[in-house]
Formats: sequence, C-alpha cells, structure tokens
Amino acid sequence: MSNTMPNPELDRIHHIAIAVRDIAEAVDWYRKTFRCEIAYQDETWALLRFGNIGLAFVLPEQHPPHIGFVTPTASSYGTLKRHRDGTESIYISDPTGNPVELLSPESTSENV
Amino acid sequence: MSNTMPNPELDRIHHIAIAVRDIAEAVDWYRKTFRCEIAYQDETWALLRFGNIGLAFVLPEQHPPHIGFVTPTASSYGTLKRHRDGTESIYISDPTGNPVELLSPESTSENV
Repeated sequence: MSNTMPNPELDRIHHIAIAVRDIAEAVDWYRKTFRCEIAYQDETWALLRFGNIGLAFVLPEQHPPHIGFVTPTASSYGTLKRHRDGTESIYISDPTGNPVELLSPESTSENV
Repeated sequence: MSNTMPNPELDRIHHIAIAVRDIAEAVDWYRKTFRCEIAYQDETWALLRFGNIGLAFVLPEQHPPHIGFVTPTASSYGTLKRHRDGTESIYISDPTGNPVELLSPESTSENV
C-alpha cells in the first residue's frame, strides 16, 4: 500500500492496544519519541493518535492487548457493545487466541 | 483523527507484527475475516496489507512481536539495518520492554 493514501477497498485497523507497566510513563515515552497526540489518558488506559491509527496503552491486569479492526461485518458476530468513546464493537479471537476487536464502521467515523 | 484522511503532522505506524502459531492458518483466517491483501507470505512470516497499515504475522520463536513506526529520527538511535523488503530500521524498547521498530521515512515511501 501507499503510506500516504488510504485504500478504501481494504478494511482499516482502528487502533492497537499494547500492555504497559505504567500508563503515564508510556504516554511520556511515546510522546517524546514520536510525533503523536493524546486523545485520552487516565491512570488505567490511554489512547495516542498517530497519523494513520490510534495506539492504546492498557494495564495487563485490566484489559488484554488487542487489535481493533473496522469491518462492516462486525455485527454478524453478535451484539455490539457501545463504549464510552462512542465506538461499538465485539471481541473475538484469532486461531492463535489473540484478541481481535471488531468495530462497526458507523461508530468509528467520528472517533479515533 | 479522521479515519479517512491521514494526518501528515503526526508520525505513522507502518506495521504491527503479532505472534501466531501457524503463518498459513493466520493468513487464511484474517483474509476470511477482513478485506485485506497478501503482501508477502512464506512459512516463517507473512505481511497483510490493510487500508491504513500492514499486519505481519511472526512465529514467536523466530521474531518478537513488535510495532514498526516511521520516524525521521530513526537514524539518531544508531545504524539502520536494511531489510530484504527495502525498509531500513533499528529496534529499541519502550520502558515496559515492548520491542519498537523505528523505520526511516525514505525507506518506507514505496513499501508497505
């Protein structure tokens, strides 16, 4: 793919959530290392905005690391749960057991 | 951020590499579940192209899961290594110990 233009024929990855030992420490380090913006931050999780995707930090004891995909088929996997940021999603697992979040396109159009 | 337009003021995430138990099984499942394209595949790793980012599968015994960021400061961390896909990068770790790949913008402009 081009790194400058999105491809509308392909599904998008909305965010990646990785486990960190301390949310504030992670936000500080990634903000120092990269050009990115804070979309949300509290003591339990944070979301950074990069040019093409969001990067979330979670505490492993509170939330599993995962990748969030935007797909029009999300609701075919079950009832979507609405989150406080307005996104609606459902979690499934890939064959290895990696958590995969499926977000509806309608719920992500105005969100990170 | 908008989900349809990249933001040139912010750094981009080039790819995410996650660990899977079997490369072919992972490619099949993600291809069945999402609209994405195969950029590369062999028995030891694969790279899928999504609308805004690449998703790589690695075998945990061969390569660590990581996130690859494009940043103009990559070369300030040390000598970049050139990979067979043409990208040039160096690995560092975040404070938690998560592997972070830093890719030079020049080496990624024509690559996934």
